[in-house]
Amino acid sequence: MSLKAKTKNITIVLYKPKYAGNVGSVARAAKNMGVHNIIVVGTTDLDREAMEQRSTHLAADVLDQILYADALEEALGNFNYIVGTTARLGKARGPFVSPRTAAGQIADLSQKNKIALLFGPEDTGLANDQLRLCHSVVTIPTSREFTSLNLSQAVMILCYEIFVASSAATSLAEATPKLALSSETEGMYGQIKELLAEIGFLNPENPEYWMLDLRRFFARAGLLSREVKIVRGICRRLEWHARHKNT
Amino acid sequence: MSLKAKTKNITIVLYKPKYAGNVGSVARAAKNMGVHNIIVVGTTDLDREAMEQRSTHLAADVLDQILYADALEEALGNFNYIVGTTARLGKARGPFVSPRTAAGQIADLSQKNKIALLFGPEDTGLANDQLRLCHSVVTIPTSREFTSLNLSQAVMILCYEIFVASSAATSLAEATPKLALSSETEGMYGQIKELLAEIGFLNPENPEYWMLDLRRFFARAGLLSREVKIVRGICRRLEWHARHKNT
Repeated sequence: MSLKAKTKNITIVLYKPKYAGNVGSVARAAKNMGVHNIIVVGTTDLDREAMEQRSTHLAADVLDQILYADALEEALGNFNYIVGTTARLGKARGPFVSPRTAAGQIADLSQKNKIALLFGPEDTGLANDQLRLCHSVVTIPTSREFTSLNLSQAVMILCYEIFVASSAATSLAEATPKLALSSETEGMYGQIKELLAEIGFLNPENPEYWMLDLRRFFARAGLLSREVKIVRGICRRLEWHARHKNT
Repeated sequence: MSLKAKTKNITIVLYKPKYAGNVGSVARAAKNMGVHNIIVVGTTDLDREAMEQRSTHLAADVLDQILYADALEEALGNFNYIVGTTARLGKARGPFVSPRTAAGQIADLSQKNKIALLFGPEDTGLANDQLRLCHSVVTIPTSREFTSLNLSQAVMILCYEIFVASSAATSLAEATPKLALSSETEGMYGQIKELLAEIGFLNPENPEYWMLDLRRFFARAGLLSREVKIVRGICRRLEWHARHKNT
C-alpha cells in the first residue's frame, strides 16, 4: 500500500521533444492526474498555439509554468530520484519495473524527495546515455506487434498509475528516507570512475561498462547523503594511496 | 488473476466522435494494447488524412477496418457485454467500477463473449440514454480540478488495464531476482573490512562502526552474485595497489 503521492514533488522531464502538440497533450494528461510540473530539455522553439490546442485552455496554466533547460544533467541536478521510461527491453539494461510497481515506489518516495519522470524523444526514446542517469527504468507493457506509444500516452499511463497508487492509499506510518540529490550521487560516480580508471579496473575503451553495474546497485539501495559522504571518504583515501604509490 | 483477454472479442465503440484526429489516436492506442476492432457510431465524415496523422501508418490497418453504424442500438446488437465509460459520477447511475476492476471482468468474459467498450463524444461524454444500455460503467479516476480526459487517453487507460490484467500471470520484466548467498556477501564484507583497515579508514578500536553503514546500503540494494564478484574484483585490485605501495 502506498502513501498519497505529493504531486508537487513530481516533475515530468521531456528530453528533446519534437512536436509542440505532444507537449500540449502531456500537459493535459499530467494535470488530469494532478501533476503540474514539466521541464523541457534541449528544445526551445515549441509553438505555443500548437501546444495550447492540445492542452486545452484548462491546462494552459501548466504550459505557462514549463521550465526549459539546455542540458539534461543540469535539469536533473536537484532531483533525488529519477525514473526513466522505455518501450524496449532489448536496448537498455535494467532493472526494469512495471508502471504499477514504479508508481507505488514513487508515491512513497514523493513524500520527502523530488522525483523526475524522464521521457525521451518521440522517435528514438531515451538512449543509454540518458538511461544511466536513472535510478529505475519503467517499461510500459504493450502488444508486441506495435510497441510505439505516443509520448503523451506514455506520460498518462505512468501518471495514472501514480494517481491510483496514491488513492488506494491508507497511510503506512513507515518512515520514508530522504535520498541524496542527483548532483551528490553524480559527483560520487565521477570520483569512483576516476579511481577505478587509475587502478586499471575500467577498460578505457568502454569505462561505462562496469560503472553501470555499480550505478544499478547503488540506485537500488537508494543512497542517503550520509552514505554518499562515506563512499567519497573511502575513495579519497584510496586515491591518496594509489597516487602515493605511483610517485 | 485474470485470464488472458481474447482481444479479438473486444471492440471499441465510439459514439459520435467529433474529431478525426482523436479517432486516429484511438486506433494507435488500441493497437498498442492489442485491440484492433473499432466501430464509429453516428459520424461518417471523418477526414482520413487527419486520422492517419495520429494513428501513424503503423496503425493504419486499424483505420481500414473501422465499421460505421448509424444508430447505437444497431451497433451494439451483436455484443454480449457492454461497458460504458464516464468521467463524472454525478450525472449517471451506476454500478460504477474502476478501470482495474472492469479490466479483470473483461479479460475473463472475453473468453466466450463479445465485449463493447463504449465511449461518448469529446465534449459531453455519454448521456443516460446511452449509459442505460451498458452492463457496467467505468469511471476513470482523475484529479478533481481537471476531470476532462482526451478521448484517446480514456481509451488507452481502459485498454492498458485490460492488457495488464491479461498479462499479470506472465509478467515479462519482473522475474524475481536471485540474490547472492549470505556466504558470498559475508566474504565480500570481510574483504572490504581488511582493505579499509589497511588504508587506515577504519578505527581499529571500533572497526564495525563504518562497516555497519556499508552493510546497510549493500543490504538495501539486495546484491546479486554478479555484483558481489564485481565488488570483490575491485577490492582485489585496490589491495594490490595498497600492498605494493607498502613494500
